[in-house]
Amino acid sequence: MNTYQECIDACLECMQACNRCFDACLQEEHVGHMAECIRIDRECAEICAYTANALSRNSPFAEQTCSLCAEICEACAKECEKHEEEHCQQCAEACRECAEMCRKMAV
Amino acid sequence: MNTYQECIDACLECMQACNRCFDACLQEEHVGHMAECIRIDRECAEICAYTANALSRNSPFAEQTCSLCAEICEACAKECEKHEEEHCQQCAEACRECAEMCRKMAV
Amino acid sequence: MNTYQECIDACLECMQACNRCFDACLQEEHVGHMAECIRIDRECAEICAYTANALSRNSPFAEQTCSLCAEICEACAKECEKHEEEHCQQCAEACRECAEMCRKMAV
Amino acid sequence: MNTYQECIDACLECMQACNRCFDACLQEEHVGHMAECIRIDRECAEICAYTANALSRNSPFAEQTCSLCAEICEACAKECEKHEEEHCQQCAEACRECAEMCRKMAV
Repeated sequence: MNTYQECIDACLECMQACNRCFDACLQEEHVGHMAECIRIDRECAEICAYTANALSRNSPFAEQTCSLCAEICEACAKECEKHEEEHCQQCAEACRECAEMCRKMAV
Repeated sequence: MNTYQECIDACLECMQACNRCFDACLQEEHVGHMAECIRIDRECAEICAYTANALSRNSPFAEQTCSLCAEICEACAKECEKHEEEHCQQCAEACRECAEMCRKMAV
Repeated sequence: MNTYQECIDACLECMQACNRCFDACLQEEHVGHMAECIRIDRECAEICAYTANALSRNSPFAEQTCSLCAEICEACAKECEKHEEEHCQQCAEACRECAEMCRKMAV
Repeated sequence: MNTYQECIDACLECMQACNRCFDACLQEEHVGHMAECIRIDRECAEICAYTANALSRNSPFAEQTCSLCAEICEACAKECEKHEEEHCQQCAEACRECAEMCRKMAV
């Protein structure tokens, strides 16, 4: 069991939630309203994938990587919370959870 | 000099062109018209980044990776060619160039 | 629930097993015996991360990506099965599982 | 021309130098002496690839990402400078160059 296992799991959940939100936003009737959400969903999915990968290979830069991941997750949560769509709400929740786990590791 | 150097260079140019197109599409007035372009720009940028990374580490799976990259580049070129915007036209050109280089390696 | 959920889960398990094996191999007394394993662990972790990311964003290239992932997982399993270390054995098992899931999607 | 173009170019050069060093280290007679170098080459190649990708899509997190990239490049340079092999010396140089470019952006 990796010391970072809970954090890895949260990152992987968050990557998936961000990607589902990205995909759903691109299929919305008013894509224009979702432009910022689409952009930041990609940012967040990519840093979460990066972080889970780095933590599971026992990266010597785990703490700094978690710190960056937490910041991006928080920004993504803030954007997604503005939208009522279920995929945005679920994404925001996963981002909050992941940010919290990453903040604990970043200390 | 890596055997795959020309292919690596083409992948890295293509990754950048796709990402510039992704960014520009999200800032267009009619984002809705660009939804497919946004989606495939991300796909193509990611496989190009992956392929350049794999080739430069001398991956034993270079040929198969180039084959997948070529296919995605061709699909991205086809989508971008539908749009008159300069960022789409430049992206399509970079995709065609990259697909050609990858096809040579994939044989 | 994503159509590809079982496959995504298998890819994410496999990414982690490959990364744990990569990390453990680098700490073995006889790193030299593990050079091929280290190389292919990275290849397999990276394609599994890529594939899970692509599937969760509903990539139009899911089938072809799964096909490449299956091939790399099978090669990694074959290499890891040569070594008695527990991390290699666990990695091989995760690779076999992931290859099987990816093959189903690749059809 | 992207504002970050020089930084993107430095990241992509560094990614390639780290991957060439990773590949060459795995083929050295005394792989054991290179274990730390192999580990950090991967770390550095991955963050450089990530950073170039993020900068070219106009990520809102460019500065923080450059800051993390600079830190990892500096650590990789320090490790590679310990070794006389040409691939390590070339990697160290690319890492120093990239770290400097990233530090400018991170301010």
